[in-house]
Amino acid sequence: MFTLPEQVKIVEVGPRDGFQNIKQYIATETKLSIIETMVAAGVTSMEVTSFVHPKAIPQMADAAQVAETVASKYQNTAFKPIALVPNLTGGKKAYSTGIREVSYVISASEKHNLENINRTHIQSLEDLSNIVKELPDLKVRLDVATSFGCPFLGRVDDGLVTNLIQEAVKLGIKTVVLCDTIGVADPLLVYNLASKVKTTFSNVEVGLHLHDTRGMALANTLAGLEAGITIFEASVGGLGGCPFAPGAAGNAATEDLINMFHAMGIKTDIDLSKYIEATRIVREKVQDVLTSRMAYACSYKHI
Amino acid sequence: MFTLPEQVKIVEVGPRDGFQNIKQYIATETKLSIIETMVAAGVTSMEVTSFVHPKAIPQMADAAQVAETVASKYQNTAFKPIALVPNLTGGKKAYSTGIREVSYVISASEKHNLENINRTHIQSLEDLSNIVKELPDLKVRLDVATSFGCPFLGRVDDGLVTNLIQEAVKLGIKTVVLCDTIGVADPLLVYNLASKVKTTFSNVEVGLHLHDTRGMALANTLAGLEAGITIFEASVGGLGGCPFAPGAAGNAATEDLINMFHAMGIKTDIDLSKYIEATRIVREKVQDVLTSRMAYACSYKHI
Repeated sequence: MFTLPEQVKIVEVGPRDGFQNIKQYIATETKLSIIETMVAAGVTSMEVTSFVHPKAIPQMADAAQVAETVASKYQNTAFKPIALVPNLTGGKKAYSTGIREVSYVISASEKHNLENINRTHIQSLEDLSNIVKELPDLKVRLDVATSFGCPFLGRVDDGLVTNLIQEAVKLGIKTVVLCDTIGVADPLLVYNLASKVKTTFSNVEVGLHLHDTRGMALANTLAGLEAGITIFEASVGGLGGCPFAPGAAGNAATEDLINMFHAMGIKTDIDLSKYIEATRIVREKVQDVLTSRMAYACSYKHI
Repeated sequence: MFTLPEQVKIVEVGPRDGFQNIKQYIATETKLSIIETMVAAGVTSMEVTSFVHPKAIPQMADAAQVAETVASKYQNTAFKPIALVPNLTGGKKAYSTGIREVSYVISASEKHNLENINRTHIQSLEDLSNIVKELPDLKVRLDVATSFGCPFLGRVDDGLVTNLIQEAVKLGIKTVVLCDTIGVADPLLVYNLASKVKTTFSNVEVGLHLHDTRGMALANTLAGLEAGITIFEASVGGLGGCPFAPGAAGNAATEDLINMFHAMGIKTDIDLSKYIEATRIVREKVQDVLTSRMAYACSYKHI
């Protein structure tokens, strides 16, 4: 018999991880309307934007406007917006808009970290340390990229992941997210790594960020549930997650996760039919062909 | 820790369940070349065609030619072709081509059985009884359609499935396949029903036929593995499985299953890269957009 939790927490990452892959500029009001529809459906945690340099990702040029609008609108509500920040400068900008939770990314594979953000592990950890010290009111989540596999290393050793988390914990980090950056995790790998990280760091919140590149997003989610994980990042419509090829899937689709959780009697506090409204806006205004399964399954009558 | 088997058996259903949904006629030589490519990759069990009336499914008008060619070519090899037969007449036709294993479908939901093939359970079981008695050399698999959900009943009660299997077992059936005909199974449902059927009928081989309609094909496969199932039906490219809407997924894709099994160290005796050749032929000659994830993931370098 499965051991399943009663409740899970979904962290929506579509407006950050999804939108940043879209070349065509999405109007700020469209971004806000998608965010608001998801919040109305019950999403309480969401990466709403990214404070990267607009030259690197022009889609995020309106980061301050999006963050400020959202932080102000939902102040003193259950909804907590998150922004991705690449460094202390980004952290300060996010803080000034009213954001109080940020994601910071380091790859378990140092080679990937160097290729991706041109920093060694030591440089990335120094940067993280500066953010934590200079912005003590900011909650910082550590996204451990390439936790399961890396385009340079292949399989990533458990030890690389736990060593990096160990260093982050020393700096005061209390939430880490194991990210399947290139979509090569399998259920056994997820179960084993998630169990190890949870056991090793019993005071740390551990989340999973899974991709559907090889169709295993929900199988890996199930393995995560069985390992005791209750925090799952996912993206509306399955947007983002760096798909390399046309037709390829990237991020796990939020609506697919919600549907599976509800089917098994696991609460998310999100209303799926209301959430699907956000998927419809995304199809209409952002990208007409989505990799989410529920985006299509919902277009005929559900039993 | 997961309990996973060392080895599973994949039953390819693309040339039957996949092709029967394709409106454009597929040349017999194309069908044969896809079948041969999959056998060369290591597939040992496959539904190669269906002996339904060509007026009902024109795509299967060459059933006798396909069956005869395949049965003759692979006589005395490890590869065992299967044909779907809707009645005794179809069974006799299949037998005359050299086929020695057939699939016969009854829905657990009698209402679905009536709508689908215009027969009551008693009529379907009589027909099955005639096939078993008149063709004693034929191995007959029972596909239990709507095992998990039905468009008329919604959730299907376990008892409907076990009662039907009980009747089939009395007729001598030794292999049953629990089919998620409309793609509404979830991992908990699969685990519970598969465990119950395996426990209740310990001398019966139990397989699963899963759909990816809501993205749960591989999660449900994992749940099946944990329940001790080692026989999985799947379709090349994810073809077939009656998708209702454009863009919707149907059958579990064979290449997605093989990839997950291999990633977890479970043997299938199928060479994935050789199998993907069959997927390429399907994309080129049958249907250019596939719902399989591996059909696209494989188009960039695998780590």
